[in-house]
Amino acid sequence: MRRISSCVLAVIALACALSAATPKEAADRWRAAHEQQILKEFTDLLAIPNVASDKNNIRRNADTLVEMLRRRHVEAKMLFSTDANPVVYGERKTPGAKHTIVFYAHYDGQPVTPEDWETKAPFSPVPKEVNGEPRIFARSASDDKAAIIAQLAALDALDAAKVPLKANLRFVWEGEEEAGSPNLGRILAEHKDDVGGDVWLICDGPVDQSGKQSVVFGARGITSLEITVFGAHRELHSGHYGNWAPNPAMMLAKLLAGMKDDNGRVLIPHFYDGIAPLSETEKKAIQDAPKNEELLREDLWLAGTEGGGRPLLELLNEPSLNIHGMTSARTGATATNVIPATATADIDIRLVKGLDWKTQQQRVADYITAQGYFVSEVPPMKNIFLVHPKVAFLKRGTDSYNAVRTSMDLSIAKQVIAAVESVRGPVVKLPTMGGSVPLEMIQNTLGTTMIIVPIANYDNNQHAANENIRLQNLWDGIETMAALEAME
Amino acid sequence: MRRISSCVLAVIALACALSAATPKEAADRWRAAHEQQILKEFTDLLAIPNVASDKNNIRRNADTLVEMLRRRHVEAKMLFSTDANPVVYGERKTPGAKHTIVFYAHYDGQPVTPEDWETKAPFSPVPKEVNGEPRIFARSASDDKAAIIAQLAALDALDAAKVPLKANLRFVWEGEEEAGSPNLGRILAEHKDDVGGDVWLICDGPVDQSGKQSVVFGARGITSLEITVFGAHRELHSGHYGNWAPNPAMMLAKLLAGMKDDNGRVLIPHFYDGIAPLSETEKKAIQDAPKNEELLREDLWLAGTEGGGRPLLELLNEPSLNIHGMTSARTGATATNVIPATATADIDIRLVKGLDWKTQQQRVADYITAQGYFVSEVPPMKNIFLVHPKVAFLKRGTDSYNAVRTSMDLSIAKQVIAAVESVRGPVVKLPTMGGSVPLEMIQNTLGTTMIIVPIANYDNNQHAANENIRLQNLWDGIETMAALEAME
Repeated sequence: MRRISSCVLAVIALACALSAATPKEAADRWRAAHEQQILKEFTDLLAIPNVASDKNNIRRNADTLVEMLRRRHVEAKMLFSTDANPVVYGERKTPGAKHTIVFYAHYDGQPVTPEDWETKAPFSPVPKEVNGEPRIFARSASDDKAAIIAQLAALDALDAAKVPLKANLRFVWEGEEEAGSPNLGRILAEHKDDVGGDVWLICDGPVDQSGKQSVVFGARGITSLEITVFGAHRELHSGHYGNWAPNPAMMLAKLLAGMKDDNGRVLIPHFYDGIAPLSETEKKAIQDAPKNEELLREDLWLAGTEGGGRPLLELLNEPSLNIHGMTSARTGATATNVIPATATADIDIRLVKGLDWKTQQQRVADYITAQGYFVSEVPPMKNIFLVHPKVAFLKRGTDSYNAVRTSMDLSIAKQVIAAVESVRGPVVKLPTMGGSVPLEMIQNTLGTTMIIVPIANYDNNQHAANENIRLQNLWDGIETMAALEAME
Repeated sequence: MRRISSCVLAVIALACALSAATPKEAADRWRAAHEQQILKEFTDLLAIPNVASDKNNIRRNADTLVEMLRRRHVEAKMLFSTDANPVVYGERKTPGAKHTIVFYAHYDGQPVTPEDWETKAPFSPVPKEVNGEPRIFARSASDDKAAIIAQLAALDALDAAKVPLKANLRFVWEGEEEAGSPNLGRILAEHKDDVGGDVWLICDGPVDQSGKQSVVFGARGITSLEITVFGAHRELHSGHYGNWAPNPAMMLAKLLAGMKDDNGRVLIPHFYDGIAPLSETEKKAIQDAPKNEELLREDLWLAGTEGGGRPLLELLNEPSLNIHGMTSARTGATATNVIPATATADIDIRLVKGLDWKTQQQRVADYITAQGYFVSEVPPMKNIFLVHPKVAFLKRGTDSYNAVRTSMDLSIAKQVIAAVESVRGPVVKLPTMGGSVPLEMIQNTLGTTMIIVPIANYDNNQHAANENIRLQNLWDGIETMAALEAME
């Protein structure tokens, strides 16, 4: 009996092995049978507001995510550190595993201005067709809750199809990414044993504009500055003082105008000094990538672009300086005939490998000084204004980090590419993404390897009103995550 | 009996004449005895919101003002015209009068942004001391309800002291001045017989910064433009597109920066062409006026001014170009890392005699075109954006008018100066005020003579948050109006 039953078990095991689903099959079957369930879980999560400064709702998100992990038999908890939004952490241990794969995503979203949204309600997810295809509109639909849902649905799919896991899986979901990850380095350092791994897969950002899946080996760094310049210390009637009292809106216009040439080249001295050159492999990868400029110009209604006609991917491997907001008094219905008292510009600076964010900030500060401004880093008072005709108040962004680029020739890099290509076909390989994720502090703290596997559609209105995810990108993302979760 | 009683009456009349109060005495006595009553009427009026677009409250203001006139035995009514806010009109006829004096003021106020006010409530008047002197803070406290209260209290004072009026008095109080007086010309034309007179006294604006009473013989004209420039037709992630997609905030900065030199001189071609020169009398009046630059720089916290050090009064006799608002995406707490989709600047242009507002608008439009922009005067659509790399949407302000300057040598001009000096001592005579009042359309429609007699303190935050009137200016204003109401 004993021998017979052993034999029977062996046959059954063989049959199972023969019929074992591939990650792609597992993902596709699960999705086909559970679309509504997946969407319900997704929209319930999107309905919880998630701006990093909204501590109560951030906690509601974290509680929900811990529950979602536990329902999948993932050991889950929150990682805390003083004043930080918690990192939601999960682990599924695999007996005999040789490797640990860490899936990073973030559950916080960009700040919202509800009146700019078509729905006026960024946290009330709504389905809507775009170009005949379904999408879900809500803050963080793409950036970055879709990645979390894809990782979880992929796990459901593998479990349901009984696809055996080979590696230990870890999930690290941050709650402050859109606020610049001010505490992530500290949390990781304090929970080093939990969160380390052979590779960190950063599941954030959009795939290639062509719609092809991309795997990205780095990200630009980021820093920011807020510049305020001043006229009189109160708004003045533009008739009684116009021509005589300085106008800070005009002063700011002149200051900003001098920062770039008409081609978008930054004119701030030394801005491009120190850039690490691309390797031959990286240059080739850029050459092989799809050329999407024509598609993008049509989609974005652009007759011309910066960079003197150079391709987007080439330009993304250079540092940038971008005015992301500019305000002085009021325009439109609430405008009044005043000489404004102040004018403010918010600027973000993207960095590539070789540049340091503090140095880039200082280069801009030095430029402002060179334009004749007294630069103050505390709110300037009357005594300053009475002495200096041009005063700038500079706030340096502290939520800043440098760029990272992982070599495409590492064996783990090749494994990740192979896994993703097993479900999604040939992928676009890029040395860097244009956006920024806090790779540097993770790499420095954990000594791990960073690779970015995004899933969102490129036209997702990330960071703006009417953010959305194309549903097909979510479905494709489940396949991709299943393949990565099943890696050795 | 008949002869005796005639004689008695003659004696009484003589006694009255001998003891008759001067306008100054009448005003001072009335004010001393009725301060609280005057302030109650004033603050009740200020508590009625008066933004020109707020039709219901505008009507409440007008109803109240008609009642206030009737209580003074002034025949009062509203003058209507299609879609216009009513002009409140009052007339006190004087038997045997040879002249008619018209007192103009306006009861509407500038738009408000309550959160910018210290009180958060622009229509809840509050008393507050500034430099040890009482002021009232509320929208229109200075601009221009104080003038209305001064005219009415002066009439009360003359009546109480039985000072006989010599001229017919008319009161014309407009309800759309801060909206650019779009309908005043039409209303005046339609009610020409009611509103004409030998002289129109414009009771609006601040007195000289030195605190001295001023009489002003003209005002700058005004026109406005709103310029919007465009990047991609939606906001873009500054990381994924920064360096490549055009940034409209930077485009606007460059466009605006080219409009003026560092001294505030306008660089738009032909901007100064056609200016009517000042007469010798006018030049002398400017030379004789107080020099307030030092006081103003200290008060406004300004180490430097535009115009290369030239005096304010000289510069006010030149046209100006002022950015009164500038907006692109968001700054501060709601800022996000986007490339903005649009950037907008609202500009006002002040005109001096000899310039035409339509010509000045066109000069700016031509300048924008010369900078390589396709200038559209309707909201541009996709087909425009796909062809033109630089597109500007230009809204021309229609609530515009030209400058007016009345000769200081007219006999009515001399009478007005004498009347004001009888109560307020030597006055500052100015050929023009920096601000704008719709003198041109009044002059053109009625063929009358325009003279401005302001009463407000210069530091009244007119057109801005925390508008206020220094109470002493209201009291002085009652004296001034009493002297003018008692003119022949």
